[in-house]
Formats: sequence, structure tokens, C-alpha cells
Amino acid sequence: MPRSIAPHRVALLLALLGLAGPGPANPTPQSVLDAAPATAWRDIPADELMVMTLGDGSVVTIRLAPAFAPVHVANIRTLVRAGWFDAGAIIRVQDNYVVQWAQGDEKRALPPGIVAVPPAEYERPAAGLRVRPLGQRDSYARMTGLSDGWPIGGEGNTRWLAHCYGMVGVGRDNAPDTGSGSELYAVIGHAPRQLDRNIALVGRVIGGIETMAARPRGTGPLGFYQTPAERVPIVSARIAADLPLAERPAWQILDSDGATFTAWVTARANRKDDFYVRPAAAVDLCNAVPPTRRKP
Amino acid sequence: MPRSIAPHRVALLLALLGLAGPGPANPTPQSVLDAAPATAWRDIPADELMVMTLGDGSVVTIRLAPAFAPVHVANIRTLVRAGWFDAGAIIRVQDNYVVQWAQGDEKRALPPGIVAVPPAEYERPAAGLRVRPLGQRDSYARMTGLSDGWPIGGEGNTRWLAHCYGMVGVGRDNAPDTGSGSELYAVIGHAPRQLDRNIALVGRVIGGIETMAARPRGTGPLGFYQTPAERVPIVSARIAADLPLAERPAWQILDSDGATFTAWVTARANRKDDFYVRPAAAVDLCNAVPPTRRKP
Repeated sequence: MPRSIAPHRVALLLALLGLAGPGPANPTPQSVLDAAPATAWRDIPADELMVMTLGDGSVVTIRLAPAFAPVHVANIRTLVRAGWFDAGAIIRVQDNYVVQWAQGDEKRALPPGIVAVPPAEYERPAAGLRVRPLGQRDSYARMTGLSDGWPIGGEGNTRWLAHCYGMVGVGRDNAPDTGSGSELYAVIGHAPRQLDRNIALVGRVIGGIETMAARPRGTGPLGFYQTPAERVPIVSARIAADLPLAERPAWQILDSDGATFTAWVTARANRKDDFYVRPAAAVDLCNAVPPTRRKP
Repeated sequence: MPRSIAPHRVALLLALLGLAGPGPANPTPQSVLDAAPATAWRDIPADELMVMTLGDGSVVTIRLAPAFAPVHVANIRTLVRAGWFDAGAIIRVQDNYVVQWAQGDEKRALPPGIVAVPPAEYERPAAGLRVRPLGQRDSYARMTGLSDGWPIGGEGNTRWLAHCYGMVGVGRDNAPDTGSGSELYAVIGHAPRQLDRNIALVGRVIGGIETMAARPRGTGPLGFYQTPAERVPIVSARIAADLPLAERPAWQILDSDGATFTAWVTARANRKDDFYVRPAAAVDLCNAVPPTRRKP
């Protein structure tokens, strides 16, 4: 909420809210999460977490989506395990659009085991996919919902991942090339949903998006950095399952099939605390993507 | 478009596209703008431009919206002319949400002529407002459209400004306070449309949003900067009409009532170039906000 509160008063205000906090009659999204049982959160498997450490020490954690782009995700795991992104870099930051990263050496050959031209994993059959419908009007899709925490668009018998803030996709040249996974981007602006079903989405940044989104914008065409000095180096990229147990990060996502998610998204759509004067009675797909957290 | 193109190849590619560029049969948003006559653009009056120079030399230009929030905009002009924001600062950057700025001295009294508690200019009557309907489904509003370039939501006889990327609003404490205009914020993430009709929107950043959005995120609650050292000073804020003619910036916005806008928004909704394989046949309100430019 854009409040005109002086910073030194914020801590006091939050403390007061905690003490006198909203009761069950008017829960806020945060009060719903604060009251949630441990079972409201699902563990994210360690082989679905890609962890990138950047040159400035920041860490970016990506949840991969093998249920939607199995060949691209297999490629990405193979690339990561071959050290493809180590000594790579962020090469592009376009305002209100994407951050993009790649291997630094453009002439380097893809490692063995890569499917160089994967199928177009832009959508998948509805059959076999559990989706919790959101029940909102949407410009880009007849139906929207969440599947295992992923934002979903759909029509007829087809479902697809939606380009919400933080979603990760595979850079490609012109169709029918679908990209090998050797170059990736993350959304850092208003959802560019026109890209849905035109690019393979493979995951979502669940940690560190705030450092990526705060990178200086590139001054070249399409936001590409114009000089090597502008690039931010990637020190290492790893699949969490490959790390020693002591170093392995553990993440959870709010279970989008659970009662807590329903309470959270209902509160998102119907803000009734002291600040809001008119609840929207609505929440669009990309404002309904479930929160994630470090496993407590 | 997240293409996997090496930066050094982009200039060549753009040159080639320029030579062999898309014909009238499949215009792109950019080719529509490139072919637009001068009359497709409207001059923005100089007294509706607020120009802020920040401590790092970057300049932020805001188009004000007196047709929607006349009392708040009058306040902002009075504040700017009284030097209110000079020696102010950016005090808050919350990822995927807002950048907020204010006067640095919290104890400073508001200048004379300020309406300290303005009316809630969160919406206005439809009567007397020309709106070009967008004709899209939308989660937050029964109808959406553009009015003199502003993104509009509506239902019944009411119309309101929508919280799209770059839109500027008035920070406030809890209702019924509406904020005086002495503290402002700009949207830097996915449109937080739940704020529509809960806050007075007063303008849109039309120049420099990319530098605001790239600021380091605050680490305090709600993204407030925790130390004065984190703040970015505002050197000066001026209404363009008050500047000497030689220093006065001149900006234009694509006329949302014109044929070029219709061609541009149609191209935004129906991408058919070599990259896109499936046009969305849709564009949501916040992806349809008209471009602005320096007057050539």
C-alpha cells in the first residue's frame, strides 16, 4: 500500500497491527499466511531448483517446471551440470520487460546430451493436469487458474504457463526454433502475456528477482548491454539436488490446492483493512501467483 | 521479444529488418509508429509536465492528469512551485510494486494554498469524458479504454484511472485521508489494480521510469529505505511551463482517438511477424497504454 508513512514510523505501525491485528472477519493476505499451518506449504523438490550465484554475491533461485516443458528442463539440467552458465553473464535488461542471461562465449558448443531443437513446449493437454480455476475475466485466456502453484491460461483442451512477473522462459531466434535452453530470461515488468504460447516457459524466479529487476537497463537495442563491462557475471549455476546436503537450499510454495491458498487469494481480491476503501472483488492471474518461502 | 541473439548481431538484424521490413499486411507496433504522420501525436501542455532532476543526474518527467484529480494536481503544482520536492528524496522502492518519493524534512509545514484534505478523486463521472473503448475482458473493470491517452476502467456511470506501469499516485495514510500530494509514488511492477479507486492517481511517468525502476529495493518493511544514505536525493522539481523556453522539454503522446493508435493497438494484440507463432488476439489495458516521445 503506498502509504505516506515516515520510515521510522513503519516498524511501530507494523507492531501495532500485529497486536491489534485484523480478526478473522477481515483477514489480509499477510494475516492469512501468518496463521497458516505448516501443511499449507509444499516442499519444492531439490531437483526442481536452479541456484545461480552472481558476481556481486546475490543469489537467484529458480523453480523449474518439468510438468510443462520436460525437454527444455532436461536440457537446462544438462547445461547446468556441464557448467554452461558458469562464467556466463546477464547480457540484457529491458525496462518493464525482461532480464536475460547466457553463456559468455558465443562460440562454445552445446554439451553432449542436449536436444538442440526441442519440440515447441508452449502448451500441453488439459488432460492429466489438475488446475484450481481462478474464476476471473482475463484478456488473454478463456480460463485461468493455478496448477501446483503455476499460473495457467487455458482454452478448450489446452493449458499453458502464463508470462507473469518472475516467470522464466527460453530465449530463441525466429520460429520454428524453440531455443535449446542455453539462454534464459525472466519477466521483470507488467505481464507480457502476448508471449504466452509463443515461447517455452520453464520456471519462475522464487528468490532474488528483486536484485535482477534492479539491474541498470541496457542502452542497446532491445535492452542488450552494449559493452562487456556492463554485464553482470554468473559465478556458478547449480541444481540444488547436486549440492552437498548442508549447502542445499530448501524452498516451499503455498499449496494452490489448499484452503489457505483460497483464503489468501480471497483476501487479495477483497482488501478490507483500514487502508482500502473499495475492495476490487477481483484479482488477475498474475496477482494471484502463490508466495514462496525458505522452509522454516 | 526474448530472442537468443548475441548483442553484436542485433544492430545488423535491425538493419536487415529495416530493409526487408514488414509490409502493410503484417505491421508491427514499431512499424506503425515509424509510419505515423505527425498528426498522430498530441502535444502535452507544458503545465501538465512535472520534471524532477535526481542527484545522479537522471531526469524523471511526469504527465499530470488534471481531468481526473484536479484538486490533487493543483496541490502538486503548488507544492512544486513552493520548492517542496527540492531537497526531497526517493525514500522507498518495493519490488514489483512502487517507487515513492517525498520531502526530506518530515516536520516541514505544507506551503500556503494547499488543500490539506482533498476530496477522494478516485473516480469521476463518465459524462463529459471521451473514452475509446478497448473491448477486452478485464479482471478489475467491466469496461476498459483510453481517454486522452490515459488508461481507464469503468462500470456504470463511473470512470477511473488504472494503476498501470508508470502511473503516479498520491501516498496517504488510512482512509478517509486522501493525501495532500506531498508524497508520491510510481508503479514499477505488474499493475496493482486492486489499488484502483482506493488512491488518487494523478499522472504517469513518461520519461525516466527505467532509472526509477532500477533503484535498489529498500530492505525495510514495505521497501522503505532504512538509512538516509540509501535515499536518492531530488535536486529539483519543476513544472515545465515555469522553465525558460529554451530549457522547456516538449513531449507528445500518441493520440488515443486516432487511426494510428487503433493500428498500433491492433498490432500489439495481433503479433504476426517472423517471431510470433500465435497472435494473442488480445491486449490487456496496461499493455495498451499509448507511447510518448520527445517532440521531434
